[in-house]
Amino acid sequence: MKDKFISELGEKKLIKILLDKRDSSLDISDMNIKDSYHDDAALIKNSSEYTVVSTDMLIEHSHFPKEMTSYQRGQKVVTVNVSDILAMNAKPTSILISMGLPPTMTLSEYEDLTDGILSKCEHYGITLIGGDINENSELILCGTSIGIADKNVKLQTNIEEGNLIGVSGNLGSPAAALDLIYLNDISNENNDRIIESLLEPTLPIDTSEVLREYPEIATSITDITDGLAVELGHLSDKNPDIGFEIYYEKLPYDKTIEEVSKRNYKNLMEYLLHFGEEFELLLTLDEEEYARHSDQLDIHIIGRTNDSGKITLIKEGKEENISVRGYEHLKDD
Amino acid sequence: MKDKFISELGEKKLIKILLDKRDSSLDISDMNIKDSYHDDAALIKNSSEYTVVSTDMLIEHSHFPKEMTSYQRGQKVVTVNVSDILAMNAKPTSILISMGLPPTMTLSEYEDLTDGILSKCEHYGITLIGGDINENSELILCGTSIGIADKNVKLQTNIEEGNLIGVSGNLGSPAAALDLIYLNDISNENNDRIIESLLEPTLPIDTSEVLREYPEIATSITDITDGLAVELGHLSDKNPDIGFEIYYEKLPYDKTIEEVSKRNYKNLMEYLLHFGEEFELLLTLDEEEYARHSDQLDIHIIGRTNDSGKITLIKEGKEENISVRGYEHLKDD
Repeated sequence: MKDKFISELGEKKLIKILLDKRDSSLDISDMNIKDSYHDDAALIKNSSEYTVVSTDMLIEHSHFPKEMTSYQRGQKVVTVNVSDILAMNAKPTSILISMGLPPTMTLSEYEDLTDGILSKCEHYGITLIGGDINENSELILCGTSIGIADKNVKLQTNIEEGNLIGVSGNLGSPAAALDLIYLNDISNENNDRIIESLLEPTLPIDTSEVLREYPEIATSITDITDGLAVELGHLSDKNPDIGFEIYYEKLPYDKTIEEVSKRNYKNLMEYLLHFGEEFELLLTLDEEEYARHSDQLDIHIIGRTNDSGKITLIKEGKEENISVRGYEHLKDD
Repeated sequence: MKDKFISELGEKKLIKILLDKRDSSLDISDMNIKDSYHDDAALIKNSSEYTVVSTDMLIEHSHFPKEMTSYQRGQKVVTVNVSDILAMNAKPTSILISMGLPPTMTLSEYEDLTDGILSKCEHYGITLIGGDINENSELILCGTSIGIADKNVKLQTNIEEGNLIGVSGNLGSPAAALDLIYLNDISNENNDRIIESLLEPTLPIDTSEVLREYPEIATSITDITDGLAVELGHLSDKNPDIGFEIYYEKLPYDKTIEEVSKRNYKNLMEYLLHFGEEFELLLTLDEEEYARHSDQLDIHIIGRTNDSGKITLIKEGKEENISVRGYEHLKDD
């Protein structure tokens, strides 16, 4: 069957395609809530102390490498938005997604995009509860994620001296993946894992579940989407009396990226500290509580907090300062 | 002082400008919630039975006529999004706004845009609690509005036979305004009110407050952003046994638009029924309860529901069918 451009269908049919798929997977007994998903706004029944919300917009030229399929683009907008909910120690429950779609997008690309969105919602156990469709020259996906939390919500302001600093997984792979794509070196099987970290990022939901179950483990949680150095800078701004000591040799990474960095004349440290697009969590941990549950947690300890009020990197036994920089939109230099 | 392009400042400074303004107007005693506004996600303390959420994306070429100032664009994204909360009979409380900004936007345009956003938030009594800033070739503003509701939330599915049909204000002015702009006839003072309806739309918040106070008045509420005919079509789809009889002569409009329609060789009915961009509410009302409170409500009665299952227009005593069409994105023809 010949594929169509979505401009042959129009906004209403496109919404119907998406909602029919979504509705077939809905598992909600409250008819008011079900009906609300086709009304002016969605209802959420409140059952927690707090509702947690965050929004992130992805625009094709900045956030979707051309190697990324429509399915993967759909997955990414869900992952990027749910990431901020996990960073509050909250349980993600739902998402709204507004889209700007190019009229030259084909129907099968649209189907893939929406399948990617819905599959990732299922993976994270959340429901797509709202959205909007518009026309734009390039693809724009703007999500708003919603979660629930109780008094164990984790803000970035409560870090204590003597906490362990941890990350939930490897750093630097998305940075290396972008260089591999630039070198057009994506067919090498050894690099599959690296490329996947950029094109199909996913969140550490098992770790998050344990952190919610034992809220005494973490003193703060944040995501690392702007790079480890920038995020440490934010934590330092919010906890001016706390120092952050990072052991360079403890930073976890996929060994393949060492070679990629060499071939690209890049310093491995750039990949690990300053790139971002990482969908791991950066944690500060109560040492005793972490020890009690560490067997259930897939966390790499990379440092420790102290009373210095500074961010320092210990590399080959020597102390270095970390430059607090990462990617920034709308910045000329 | 020479104006700057926002690309000379970068995302972080732009966010800081907005948040400094927002923070100076924050009036919240809960420090957890205040802190959360600078964290990964915003906390909302749950105090109602339901949280109500909706999202709408505005893109420059579709939604912002070039005559619209940056301040008015900021106002519009708030109005468009809050509209859906009022349409649920919910009380609007907060909003998140993601922006795609052209790098050639000047700092003073950005200041105007954010002032427009914050002034409209203040007008509606809501708080800006989240957002994201990206670079895009044209202006994109994507909002997610949040409100609170109890069991008196109004879905579109509970319309009864014998209800009155009402609208909260004049129809057709935004359609006429677009034609005036097309004719470049915007300097005529007589047309100021019409132009304003397009460039500075606002919501009937006083009417909404009375409807929330006396929830027995309305059996359904929806907004008319896609045009009266299309919205009646939605209500008819959701209430297949109900008929909607509209009295053409009762449709409220600013008399100035009659002349505009003539000069543009347009049928007035097109303006009143099929254009949209209207930020009024379409209501079905319990006749007795409405009569009891009508002095407090600024509502125009335009029809009545019956058991015909059809949408009919009574014009000069004769029955006509209404074609259920309005504006649609991503539609070629």
